[in-house]
Amino acid sequence: MSNSIIRVHWLNQSRAFRVLWLLDALKLDFEIIPYKRVDGRAPDSLKKIHPLGRSPIVEIEDKSTGKKKMLIESGYIFQYMLQNFDHDNVLNNTDPDMAEKIQFYLHFAEGSIQPPLLMEYIYQLAEKSSSFPISYFVQSVVNKLSEAYSRGEVKNQFDFLESEIVKNKGYLVDGKLSAADILVSFPVEMAFLRGFVTSEIYPNTKKWLDTIKTTDSYAITKEKVKAFGEEM
Amino acid sequence: MSNSIIRVHWLNQSRAFRVLWLLDALKLDFEIIPYKRVDGRAPDSLKKIHPLGRSPIVEIEDKSTGKKKMLIESGYIFQYMLQNFDHDNVLNNTDPDMAEKIQFYLHFAEGSIQPPLLMEYIYQLAEKSSSFPISYFVQSVVNKLSEAYSRGEVKNQFDFLESEIVKNKGYLVDGKLSAADILVSFPVEMAFLRGFVTSEIYPNTKKWLDTIKTTDSYAITKEKVKAFGEEM
Repeated sequence: MSNSIIRVHWLNQSRAFRVLWLLDALKLDFEIIPYKRVDGRAPDSLKKIHPLGRSPIVEIEDKSTGKKKMLIESGYIFQYMLQNFDHDNVLNNTDPDMAEKIQFYLHFAEGSIQPPLLMEYIYQLAEKSSSFPISYFVQSVVNKLSEAYSRGEVKNQFDFLESEIVKNKGYLVDGKLSAADILVSFPVEMAFLRGFVTSEIYPNTKKWLDTIKTTDSYAITKEKVKAFGEEM
Repeated sequence: MSNSIIRVHWLNQSRAFRVLWLLDALKLDFEIIPYKRVDGRAPDSLKKIHPLGRSPIVEIEDKSTGKKKMLIESGYIFQYMLQNFDHDNVLNNTDPDMAEKIQFYLHFAEGSIQPPLLMEYIYQLAEKSSSFPISYFVQSVVNKLSEAYSRGEVKNQFDFLESEIVKNKGYLVDGKLSAADILVSFPVEMAFLRGFVTSEIYPNTKKWLDTIKTTDSYAITKEKVKAFGEEM
């Protein structure tokens, strides 16, 4: 829709990166409105754009009417952009079954893989934020909690991804880059960075992550956020 | 699609309840295949249905071809059922803007409101699972973590819901029951039950929750799960 102006309210060090990457992969023109974290949190100025005050927010303005739409929630933003701005199926799929699979992954990213990773991250934070001898007790508590659910669930989720990537010739859907890869890359990258999974155990998942980051659209987005002072 | 057989792989004490409620509200015929938790976790037999081994799983079998589809991830199941089985817009909306809002909430449930609630729940578990004097130290660590992010974020999310419910005449979208209400009800109910929010501070959210639970479809679903030994 060339009748639209697209603006992305982007926060440094956030999952908003994926939305920029999506738009760059779709070769869309858009403007970035940057926000900087204050004490690690999103600044209050974001609340003026949307009451939830989180980033990314994609603003779509109709050039003729001036009517504005504010899209929030990454999975929903991806779904909306595929439906309205990906007429050539660059990141979608013409096969209905494959298109459904992509839609599933847009929910999977936050619904399935993030929760156990978030739990493991909190346990890591709890251990780091306490000093000896308290850390000893904290460690024993979080270890028990991790063992009861999240550690096994992380394994379960990554076993699934690893096998799907092998089955789908190096990608999540149909042997080629889709919106699913871009959205799911964020939690997976965090899991490798924070040491919750390793490339020894998940070599194909690691290779997938490295491969999708060699795309032109990824490089373009990386340059853009660098210009706003983001280090990656 | 009367050409389909629908089966729900349902786990007791899980968010699978919402999917049954959705199907009952759509007046669809479906079969429930029940699973019982073992030591609080989903049983391994669920992995035979889908490698992720989580519930709900909605199985859709084409009567003429015998071809089966396995749908997982609650938000995605809701999206799929609206698209394929809600031709009369019982839980959807004929206004495109309102239909978009419903789609947004299908992502919001897991993407926005669940994460801070999950964090608060872990902090509650950590406090409960440690005994005095360790509990004293654990409490001080989790209090610091909660203060840094999740407590404020829970407030933020519930302030948003409370104001949306007032604006939308007692519901999330357009003054009437939609798929959004059914999906979002689960994390909200948990938040009240676990004491993360109170009806004094969020009276309209509490009233909304009580109201949607007076529907016939809720009562029908409740009876069905009772027959499988679920206590509610």
